[in-house]
Amino acid sequence: MMDKSELQRQMGFLMEIDKLKTVLRRAYISDSSRRENSAEHSWHMAMAAMVLAEYSVEKVDISKVIKMALVHDIVEVDAGDISIYLRKDDPGVAERERNAAKRIFGLLPPRQQEQFLAIQAEFDEGTTPEARFARALDRLLPVTLNYVTQGKTWREGGTTYEQVIGVNQRIKEASPDLWEHELSMINESVEKGYLRK
Amino acid sequence: MMDKSELQRQMGFLMEIDKLKTVLRRAYISDSSRRENSAEHSWHMAMAAMVLAEYSVEKVDISKVIKMALVHDIVEVDAGDISIYLRKDDPGVAERERNAAKRIFGLLPPRQQEQFLAIQAEFDEGTTPEARFARALDRLLPVTLNYVTQGKTWREGGTTYEQVIGVNQRIKEASPDLWEHELSMINESVEKGYLRK
Repeated sequence: MMDKSELQRQMGFLMEIDKLKTVLRRAYISDSSRRENSAEHSWHMAMAAMVLAEYSVEKVDISKVIKMALVHDIVEVDAGDISIYLRKDDPGVAERERNAAKRIFGLLPPRQQEQFLAIQAEFDEGTTPEARFARALDRLLPVTLNYVTQGKTWREGGTTYEQVIGVNQRIKEASPDLWEHELSMINESVEKGYLRK
Repeated sequence: MMDKSELQRQMGFLMEIDKLKTVLRRAYISDSSRRENSAEHSWHMAMAAMVLAEYSVEKVDISKVIKMALVHDIVEVDAGDISIYLRKDDPGVAERERNAAKRIFGLLPPRQQEQFLAIQAEFDEGTTPEARFARALDRLLPVTLNYVTQGKTWREGGTTYEQVIGVNQRIKEASPDLWEHELSMINESVEKGYLRK
């Protein structure tokens, strides 16, 4: 009934991705006590998908968005987290992430490797309604955490209003409603001195 | 188009549940460096659902199991995490968790309150195939983390083999295959001195 070596591989994968709990992001959690890790961020993004599904301008299969949220940062076990403001200056990051996906999802039985690699590729390419919405949620949460922590990451990184507006355009495209809400937080952050213009 | 007060409520809920990142469980993460928090545990459990779905003895809607995994510990924002070995000695815990569910899911617009309360109730009652499988996964991960951390939580708590076998019977019922795998880890843990008999 059970292929023992398959289950061994699957349990090995689950213990390997446990390391995502030690990958720190630039964002702080809402009480400002420490940086957020990529595992708990993935949970938060999946919850955001459940709660905010109705705001996607395109009809989305929300279960698919949730799976993308759960999977999208697993490559960081090998490749680490990199600031969205620094990604463009690091031409090697995409290749490191591709290699990470191959190694980590490669721990699974072949049919699951394919399934997870496909989820990752769909998220990275961002060309389906689900990927567009997932990518918007991935941007929305750091803005919101910055707002509630009085711009802690923005101030540390010397981030500007123009940079924040620039990287968050994908929220506007995926959901004008969510963008309107984010924009009011961003503008208020400038007024309050959390973000410099 | 958008009800602004609805979105305000939804964003408020998402920031409130951010606190789950600060609720510490008894389990340690796989590198033993620190205790696991309930947010990252929820992510790990949702990933386990995605990877191990085929081992449920009953046919399950895996998207429903994933949603249960994401939601099942949110009540701990108010009620805290309690050891499974101590739950039976604390008659107030079920009521504290019910009140927590009412308050926290009550932050959402009414139709979503109902949706999330229903997911929570289904998980707690454990009477559907999805709830039975989700509850098994919730037990499977701490056993596995104990095994890879050389019984760190078991040794700290003076937990016995008989206790571990007792609380994990629900894995056997939901998935004999996963139980067989867990049982071999438990037995090996006794041999290696991670768990006392």
